[in-house]
Amino acid sequence: MAQNIYDNSEFFAGYSQLARSVHGLDGAPEWPSIRALLPDLHGKRVVDLGCGFGWFARWAKQHGAETVLGLDISARMIARAKASTDDKDIQYVLADLEQVELPEAEFDLAYSSLALHYVEDFTKLIGHVHRALRGGGHFIFSIEHPIYMAPMRPGWSVDEDGRRTWPVSRYSLEGPRSTDWLAKGVLKQHRTIGTTLNALIGAGFSVRHVQEWAPTAQQLAVQPDLADEVERPMMLIVSAQR
Amino acid sequence: MAQNIYDNSEFFAGYSQLARSVHGLDGAPEWPSIRALLPDLHGKRVVDLGCGFGWFARWAKQHGAETVLGLDISARMIARAKASTDDKDIQYVLADLEQVELPEAEFDLAYSSLALHYVEDFTKLIGHVHRALRGGGHFIFSIEHPIYMAPMRPGWSVDEDGRRTWPVSRYSLEGPRSTDWLAKGVLKQHRTIGTTLNALIGAGFSVRHVQEWAPTAQQLAVQPDLADEVERPMMLIVSAQR
Repeated sequence: MAQNIYDNSEFFAGYSQLARSVHGLDGAPEWPSIRALLPDLHGKRVVDLGCGFGWFARWAKQHGAETVLGLDISARMIARAKASTDDKDIQYVLADLEQVELPEAEFDLAYSSLALHYVEDFTKLIGHVHRALRGGGHFIFSIEHPIYMAPMRPGWSVDEDGRRTWPVSRYSLEGPRSTDWLAKGVLKQHRTIGTTLNALIGAGFSVRHVQEWAPTAQQLAVQPDLADEVERPMMLIVSAQR
Repeated sequence: MAQNIYDNSEFFAGYSQLARSVHGLDGAPEWPSIRALLPDLHGKRVVDLGCGFGWFARWAKQHGAETVLGLDISARMIARAKASTDDKDIQYVLADLEQVELPEAEFDLAYSSLALHYVEDFTKLIGHVHRALRGGGHFIFSIEHPIYMAPMRPGWSVDEDGRRTWPVSRYSLEGPRSTDWLAKGVLKQHRTIGTTLNALIGAGFSVRHVQEWAPTAQQLAVQPDLADEVERPMMLIVSAQR
């Protein structure tokens, strides 16, 4: 079972105050990049793996999706997501992605934002997602980038030129990484990009697009604090198709 | 035109003494990983982009390839490659990969070892390679990993735990990187993994395998100096298919 840090009171309180929690999709700087990869949603069935407060589920429904199923391990998040809509075609279900069973050939889009790096058995989950998609269906997700996850001590250093550098180590040593972010001992699963992509290919997916997210010049002008993301990527965005 | 550092006397002298120059394929620790990705070569036509001394070209011929065309920008390397065989089915040709024109639908395998990171217009070359392959043909290559290439000051630091860390910076800033390796001012082209894979996908390739090379436990036991490669990958290996 994946760690359910989102139901930790300290973590939940901190997470609830992030821009992406308060402002939804528009509070996430990577959202324009993900949105550009999405297929037309009209009449499509969508599953959101790690739906959180349900921002994407509601957006997908507003943009034409027929039905949306949002899954999350956090009872607090599912409760808030449920309270945010009375649309019968949006369902929110408490589920551990590590254990989830999905109906076969049911969905046109599987979506996941910054959730799959909590999952230990990625290959198993990817197999489930592949079977749950119809032929031609899309799987589009973001995860933390392994450059961001790899280090034993994730934090910036400053080099002789005064430039911030990110201390990569243990990159090829996959497995759990414990960090203190919003709460102590948040547990994530480090995997190389190769492992992530090969799991998709092995399950039968075609890789369509791979993006190591960085802000645009326009985003940097508005949000100068995104400059760190130019130096080392924090997020990896992948689009694959069954 | 790509920089031809291999014909620089100082560089050539240094390069000639590397294990991979003296011992050929078996002197390259990533070779077992690449070899595992190669298709059966019997009766196949092969092109090697950046063939160097021709080790792979001769190996491919010995392993059943019908013909092998080796291309390299270095006159010194092509001269030595030519001197190493009198097999009429192995051709070595002086060529700048930046400018090369290949016959259409001619090859079953395009191979390249640590050469494509010298090429500025990667998208153009990939298009040529795609057209030069027959349907189902393979494109298998290694390049320097962008984690290795990105830093302004590529060199190890030691953190508070005494662990070596690699100072990633400028990861999303693609373009030339000048380093001093065997000679001063060796010019390579930094590209993210996303850019490399998206260029392949855009040209019409299916991505089959992506490996951020690291030594096996067995290799580490024999060559303890490979331990750095566990901390941060130096090489990226990609297998794609037309």
